[in-house]
Amino acid sequence: MGGVEVIHRVEEPPKRSTWQKLKGRLKETFFPDDPFRQFKNQPLKHRLILGAQYFFPILQWGPEYSFRLFKSDVISGLTIASLAIPQGISYAKLANLPPIVGLYSSFVPPLVYAVLGSSRDLAVGPVSIASLILGSMLRQEVSPSDDPNLFLQLAFSSTFFAGLFQASLGIFRLGFIIDFLSRATLVGFMAGAAIIVSLQQLKSLLGITHFTQQMGLVPVLSSVFHRTNEWSWQTILMGVCFLVFLLFTRHIGIRRPKLFWISAGAPLLSVILSTLLVFAFKADKHGISVIGKLQEGLNPPSWNMLRFHGAHLGLVIKTGIVTGIISLTEGIAVGRTFAALKNYQVDGNKEMMAIGIMNVVGSSTSCYVTTGAFSRSAVNHNAGCKTAVSNIVMAVTVMVTLLFLMPLFQYTPNVILGAIIVTAVVGLIDIPAAYSIWKVDKFDFIVLLCAFFGVTFISVQNGLAIAVGISIFKVLLQITRPKTMMLGNIPGTGIYRDLDHYKEAITTPGFLILSIEAPVNFVNTTYLKERISRWIEEYEAEEEQTKKQSELRFVVLDMSAISAIDTSGVSFFKDLRMTLEKKGVELVLVNPLGEVLEKLQRAEETKDIVKSDSLFLTVGEAVSALSSTIKFQVPTDHV
Amino acid sequence: MGGVEVIHRVEEPPKRSTWQKLKGRLKETFFPDDPFRQFKNQPLKHRLILGAQYFFPILQWGPEYSFRLFKSDVISGLTIASLAIPQGISYAKLANLPPIVGLYSSFVPPLVYAVLGSSRDLAVGPVSIASLILGSMLRQEVSPSDDPNLFLQLAFSSTFFAGLFQASLGIFRLGFIIDFLSRATLVGFMAGAAIIVSLQQLKSLLGITHFTQQMGLVPVLSSVFHRTNEWSWQTILMGVCFLVFLLFTRHIGIRRPKLFWISAGAPLLSVILSTLLVFAFKADKHGISVIGKLQEGLNPPSWNMLRFHGAHLGLVIKTGIVTGIISLTEGIAVGRTFAALKNYQVDGNKEMMAIGIMNVVGSSTSCYVTTGAFSRSAVNHNAGCKTAVSNIVMAVTVMVTLLFLMPLFQYTPNVILGAIIVTAVVGLIDIPAAYSIWKVDKFDFIVLLCAFFGVTFISVQNGLAIAVGISIFKVLLQITRPKTMMLGNIPGTGIYRDLDHYKEAITTPGFLILSIEAPVNFVNTTYLKERISRWIEEYEAEEEQTKKQSELRFVVLDMSAISAIDTSGVSFFKDLRMTLEKKGVELVLVNPLGEVLEKLQRAEETKDIVKSDSLFLTVGEAVSALSSTIKFQVPTDHV
Repeated sequence: MGGVEVIHRVEEPPKRSTWQKLKGRLKETFFPDDPFRQFKNQPLKHRLILGAQYFFPILQWGPEYSFRLFKSDVISGLTIASLAIPQGISYAKLANLPPIVGLYSSFVPPLVYAVLGSSRDLAVGPVSIASLILGSMLRQEVSPSDDPNLFLQLAFSSTFFAGLFQASLGIFRLGFIIDFLSRATLVGFMAGAAIIVSLQQLKSLLGITHFTQQMGLVPVLSSVFHRTNEWSWQTILMGVCFLVFLLFTRHIGIRRPKLFWISAGAPLLSVILSTLLVFAFKADKHGISVIGKLQEGLNPPSWNMLRFHGAHLGLVIKTGIVTGIISLTEGIAVGRTFAALKNYQVDGNKEMMAIGIMNVVGSSTSCYVTTGAFSRSAVNHNAGCKTAVSNIVMAVTVMVTLLFLMPLFQYTPNVILGAIIVTAVVGLIDIPAAYSIWKVDKFDFIVLLCAFFGVTFISVQNGLAIAVGISIFKVLLQITRPKTMMLGNIPGTGIYRDLDHYKEAITTPGFLILSIEAPVNFVNTTYLKERISRWIEEYEAEEEQTKKQSELRFVVLDMSAISAIDTSGVSFFKDLRMTLEKKGVELVLVNPLGEVLEKLQRAEETKDIVKSDSLFLTVGEAVSALSSTIKFQVPTDHV
Repeated sequence: MGGVEVIHRVEEPPKRSTWQKLKGRLKETFFPDDPFRQFKNQPLKHRLILGAQYFFPILQWGPEYSFRLFKSDVISGLTIASLAIPQGISYAKLANLPPIVGLYSSFVPPLVYAVLGSSRDLAVGPVSIASLILGSMLRQEVSPSDDPNLFLQLAFSSTFFAGLFQASLGIFRLGFIIDFLSRATLVGFMAGAAIIVSLQQLKSLLGITHFTQQMGLVPVLSSVFHRTNEWSWQTILMGVCFLVFLLFTRHIGIRRPKLFWISAGAPLLSVILSTLLVFAFKADKHGISVIGKLQEGLNPPSWNMLRFHGAHLGLVIKTGIVTGIISLTEGIAVGRTFAALKNYQVDGNKEMMAIGIMNVVGSSTSCYVTTGAFSRSAVNHNAGCKTAVSNIVMAVTVMVTLLFLMPLFQYTPNVILGAIIVTAVVGLIDIPAAYSIWKVDKFDFIVLLCAFFGVTFISVQNGLAIAVGISIFKVLLQITRPKTMMLGNIPGTGIYRDLDHYKEAITTPGFLILSIEAPVNFVNTTYLKERISRWIEEYEAEEEQTKKQSELRFVVLDMSAISAIDTSGVSFFKDLRMTLEKKGVELVLVNPLGEVLEKLQRAEETKDIVKSDSLFLTVGEAVSALSSTIKFQVPTDHV
């Protein structure tokens, strides 16, 4: 191991034209999963079939569908329907929309998804966070109570733009945009949103009639405690009882996944029980507010309600993009989670197209933003769903409800809807995840806190923006201040490792061996210059102190981890070499990657940096080849 | 070399508390140059002296100042004064300010810089680009001709905020913010700004009286050619003659740096000659517009003109930040360039404080934004300046002008000022730099083009913003799609290198050896998962085709270049291990860096990822240690 006799040269990277390089880069950026792999070397007819199956996954699993699978899907479909109906009504109210829109949104979108979607577990419908954001953003300009029709138009238009945006991300393969929402951001954001949503439920849970229009923690609490005279004890009693019941069944559902049906059925059971109670005791005359009459019938068309111009267009597009990206993140994350559990693949970009088209279709059939809901999908999974047919079963159940059962909800008290929402969003507060983030990465935890407090104290969209901004800033900071290391030899080997990490590693007299662990580009060349000149000065200071005869002769730069370089990076190497030459020190480059080597060679002024006598394949070879020159020259310098 | 017998273990990183790590990180981020190095182990009195010298570099070089140095400084000071006076008047007009403000700005700021600045070559005063931006941004809300007093107030207030912002960047050591303006951005931006500035000079060069208020290429040219009736042949004749003269002397100055005084003196000579011509021929009565009467006297105080409230505060702060950052970039770049030529150090953060304080003081003494100008500093350098005393000499000369010589400018024609500006900004168009960027990095060239066309066709500040946005997007893209490589063994060695780059490298049956060249974090974990699963599938497909008995047993991940990891990265390794285990493949980690290893160990669920039997120091050792296990097991699998 120790002595290295043979020197291996750094090879010229294979020649590729600019076009080939661009093609390779574009492919890695937009098609990292190579979705058209299976199309290669297939006859045309087969390709057409594969293409149809690609866009309509139902063609893939449909022909093999069996009665056995159907039985499972019916059970899980009915289970999620029993959740979807009360949640649909509740979430629509959270978005300041008529309750029936929540049911409409649980009918058409699941059918569209069943045809286009590739996840087998996703339960599609309205979700709490997207409802909250849609309602709160649109309320900035239009009051849902003063002008409900305009508000509804804006909601459908936002849904249209959300769908358009989602589908475009998928079509243009820009799905990586949702990756910018880091896990820490999401955990903090979800918890904050859960608090905000729960606070809004104080209106129905306490029976307050004059509730604030604001969303923040402080204004809501102060408004609630300034109106204690409006609190209704009947409502509070009923709310507490059902909330305890719902939370208890939820707890059972989490502890024993086999008893999923208890937590899944509890909301519907609560609705039925409470409706009966109100009806029996005429409680609606005694301070308990009820939903009231709902119209019957299936989704009316709403394409004539979409607004593509006018005063609120900017807000509508912004709302569409924010709700679109948030609901997409939830849908994709849910799809991936369950796909990993069952060991199948979901294609992120394809899912985006499916969810996007689902929302575009939804926006013209009186539906607002929908996606795959985490809680309902978990129930769906636990109930044993096999394919997207469970979504069809759910949609049919909702259809029956819409056609025949709507009068039954007339006496359903609003307090129950509040309790259902609170129970659903409690699950969004993920304390174990927050603790594990705290333990692993303190900076990520700060991002989490920013998202959480931003959402609870400032506003939903600004809290999210702040957290995303900080996450990206951290990533940029990592490039601005890249990790650099001084390497030392591990005795008895040709291996060189970080001196700070490996205490046994030793320095080689006359050599300063450095490693830069990032692309060298415009954001970090200034830092790298300062950092390296400080190392050289430290070496010289130490040399003076110890009066050793080992003056610095070589700066060896291990470039293995420099994955890319730009024009500033090229100038950096040129400047570094000039600076070192003035001090009589030679710059030695080790193992530059193909692309980096090529760029250094292409720039005229640096062509001579990559001379073959100062270019090595490993640090060990560089040191052993060059230390012989030191042994001869150092004494003559000091004669 | 070949066979590796001894296996070296990956050491535990040394234990450091969160506080120690945070301290180290903060130091690398904010004090990479370790500016207080020299303060260590010094007695208190010495420290105080060093501290005073740190903040007032004049105390450092002042005591050693000699008559010999003074002689050089007087020559260079007079030379730059002869440039500064005509340029000061011209740039003030470019910023829509009274010409005398340009002279005021060449008097106080150089004196302040001489005390605080650490560059010996910087010639301080107003510069073209900052003048252009200041004028064009403020003109969005206030017309300089309708309300000149308000416009002046806003200009001084913007200067105050520019200085405050610059000084804050220095004090809070956030100087790296200017690094986000990459070289490509600057080259494109400067060239675009030069075009815009030159177009504005068509007003004085053609003698047009009704000139457009807009800045873009299209509106200016269309306005110029719609008003051909206003063109004045006398003005054009004079302009062309002097422009040719100025460009010719500039050319000589560039070709022969020793003849710097020709190009340096030419503007003043042109002013004198043209003034005499106008005076002699009474040309101001024949269509040549002149500056007119200027008031005499030194800078009046202007602190009472600063506006910290009112309708335009937002614009003033925005203008301050944009001009502040642009002028700071120019000043720092100029300082560093000449420091490198003369082999001394300028401390970026200290320079920012100096320039910032200079502008804050300037804003209360009737000066607008100033910085170190590239062209004048080059003249200063060529004229042999030794210290900042040349700035003092220049300021004194300007003072004499302000006190006694102002009436002489009464007949100076505006066309000369236009010719001086055009000559100065021509140097900002750096075609060789653009060509070299094109050759080295095509993407950087696109950034350059965006900056150039953005500035010429949209607006100065938006063009800049677009170019900065694209540069940052490129950096983010590099992390979103990090470089990954499949490694192969270079025959006869223990070295593993990129298979695409080294054609001689060969794969090892049963092993997939991968290297990730970036921090693993939330923006790239999804991509990495997809990329690695594609490699595994490719391996399996190939294996099936060739019917080899070498099914995949180990995925070896060379982690040398993974400089950091966050919570998403930790989950990535956990998921990857799970996915591989389901396929019966073991994940082997090679050479994780200290910080990464620590985080993987700290997360409970991944503790067992870093088992000692799947953790190696080099790829070579991992392969040789593990291939023995393959030889025994592969046959039994196939029995």
